[in-house]
Amino acid sequence: MKTQTQYFEIVARAAGTKARVGRLKTPHGVIDTPVFAPVGTQGSVKTLLSQDLEKLDIQLILGNTYHLYLRPGLEVIQKVGGLHRFMSWDRAILTDSGGYQVFSMEQLRRITEEGVEFRSHLDGSLHFLSPEKATEIQLALGSDIIMCFDECPPYPCTEDHARRALEMTCRWAKRCQTAFQSTEDGRLLYGITQGSIFPELRKESTQQLLDLDFPGYALGGLSLGEPHPLTMEMVALSTDLLPEDKPRYLMGVGTPEDLWEGVEQGIDQFDCVLPTRNGRNGQLFTSVGKINIKNAPYREDLSPPDPHCDCDLCSRYSRAYLHHLFRSGELSALRLASLHNVAFLIKLMRKIRQSITNGTFLADKQKFLETYRSQGD
Amino acid sequence: MKTQTQYFEIVARAAGTKARVGRLKTPHGVIDTPVFAPVGTQGSVKTLLSQDLEKLDIQLILGNTYHLYLRPGLEVIQKVGGLHRFMSWDRAILTDSGGYQVFSMEQLRRITEEGVEFRSHLDGSLHFLSPEKATEIQLALGSDIIMCFDECPPYPCTEDHARRALEMTCRWAKRCQTAFQSTEDGRLLYGITQGSIFPELRKESTQQLLDLDFPGYALGGLSLGEPHPLTMEMVALSTDLLPEDKPRYLMGVGTPEDLWEGVEQGIDQFDCVLPTRNGRNGQLFTSVGKINIKNAPYREDLSPPDPHCDCDLCSRYSRAYLHHLFRSGELSALRLASLHNVAFLIKLMRKIRQSITNGTFLADKQKFLETYRSQGD
Repeated sequence: MKTQTQYFEIVARAAGTKARVGRLKTPHGVIDTPVFAPVGTQGSVKTLLSQDLEKLDIQLILGNTYHLYLRPGLEVIQKVGGLHRFMSWDRAILTDSGGYQVFSMEQLRRITEEGVEFRSHLDGSLHFLSPEKATEIQLALGSDIIMCFDECPPYPCTEDHARRALEMTCRWAKRCQTAFQSTEDGRLLYGITQGSIFPELRKESTQQLLDLDFPGYALGGLSLGEPHPLTMEMVALSTDLLPEDKPRYLMGVGTPEDLWEGVEQGIDQFDCVLPTRNGRNGQLFTSVGKINIKNAPYREDLSPPDPHCDCDLCSRYSRAYLHHLFRSGELSALRLASLHNVAFLIKLMRKIRQSITNGTFLADKQKFLETYRSQGD
Repeated sequence: MKTQTQYFEIVARAAGTKARVGRLKTPHGVIDTPVFAPVGTQGSVKTLLSQDLEKLDIQLILGNTYHLYLRPGLEVIQKVGGLHRFMSWDRAILTDSGGYQVFSMEQLRRITEEGVEFRSHLDGSLHFLSPEKATEIQLALGSDIIMCFDECPPYPCTEDHARRALEMTCRWAKRCQTAFQSTEDGRLLYGITQGSIFPELRKESTQQLLDLDFPGYALGGLSLGEPHPLTMEMVALSTDLLPEDKPRYLMGVGTPEDLWEGVEQGIDQFDCVLPTRNGRNGQLFTSVGKINIKNAPYREDLSPPDPHCDCDLCSRYSRAYLHHLFRSGELSALRLASLHNVAFLIKLMRKIRQSITNGTFLADKQKFLETYRSQGD
């Protein structure tokens, strides 16, 4: 029951679910899926170095087109020879299209059929992103997985708004495809489905993009604050429609619970700022639940932050020490907590892949969630 | 012409200077001198982990008694089993006595013969440090090299103030000795000389402390803003008086120039916040001079920050990348720059020791300073 394209191969499935283990080939190495990609918005996964990411055997990170386009700018990155060389990272990079960012800036942008005119959040300067421009920038960055420039409506939005956005997204997806087609070097252009939380619209958006035959599909416009069951309903109906032999990417999702559930629904890729953002706030994912290390009970707690973790934090330092670093405003606190959270999700994905291969996915999922939810702060 | 005590051995000297290479034994390993110790004020060398320091083969770091006493407090550190275990560091630690900090807080402290009453800069709570208390805290922290509680007058100060301070320092040094003597486990208690920039007073202070026969001597109250030639004059007359067979420690000193000059005058130990503080400001020590990486010319500079450095920054990243991280407010910038600066000084000390052993100290010093001063920003 193997499914295989030139670049994506499914090597195991979990019976009774849509979960699968795959291998996704990119110009910068093979990615074992399902995969979680930490976010390096400005060419750096916050507080971490490429050395740290390599040590965790991370195969894919995300870069933000909007941020990198504004600073340092394409000129600098092209001069250096691309984003990989700029940040000294020779594994795979996925870039978003900038669509999410420019659509978020409601006061600072003007949308036309041609694209989006917006003002830089850095200096107010005027810029223009279009499907062609967003594709061109991502090609220049040298990313391995390139995203179509989409219209991402906010949550909540009206059905009418959601419909207009998904139709624009489809017209723009065609233009991205045209802009992308000139290069054929193993890089992949993904289509992004929209439709907010309206089941019929999400199906329609998915169908429209299927007709364009992309090598991979992303689910956009979710995890924007809508109720969790709705998110998962949209995921389920989307993966029911998406082809088996192509990777599916759920954008912006990354709690441990969501990763298990997303995988169960047949998702192959995730990204989220959560591990680093939570880390900087002292929130740790641990095998015994979520804790905030800044809380008073940890002041004299001599145990490791996560008793079942071997990361650079947990293998050497106590909760008391990390608590002290946070309370004292030491920058190493942010680094250690970020590192641990990224390590936690990376190891969680490894465990998830293993559970699929071993035929124990549903049991392992249940076991994990029971422990994770019943303990912690 | 070997000089040797139970804990300190001089293994090489530079002809025509007072420079010497030695080996200083502590309960947490041997320290090759002359040595530069990075400062870990709050139990962390800012932005760096113990892992980073080990990778640089650092043999000695400094902890601040004042800060650690206030936060996390002795109770926590004793519960953990001392500062070494708290911060997961099994090499040597030197602690200051807290004297410098409490004397700096002119508005918040009251000095008597007994000691200094002061208010915490954290919460305004009232505390008392005395020679006995400062020694007791350092013993409880578990530090390998313990400093006497001294009165450190500001610069400038009157000759009368300087005289009173050095006399108090001597009386307190005796009390520290008494408080310390109960333990004899290889830990070392250093006396601190004062006298501001008055040659006769510094000689007098040095002589007074020599009479007490400490295992090591620190030069206190220097590098507080006085003209550089005056600093070096005080250092020279002090090391002329200090015994050959005991280590000499110049507190708070750490520019590359000062390290060469201090060693030439027979100094064996240094500490300074400069590499990490400068690093956080984007100031880099490099073999081609001092540069501020935030400056515009580095925006597109593809060369490594220091072309002759193999640290985790210079071996992988360009000036353009570090510039970008600083300009983008990425915390990794502070870490990379701090790491490089500490690595630079550690390698500089290695080079200095080598030059003494090789008999090329003066020539190497001149060569270094010519390059260092003529280039950079």
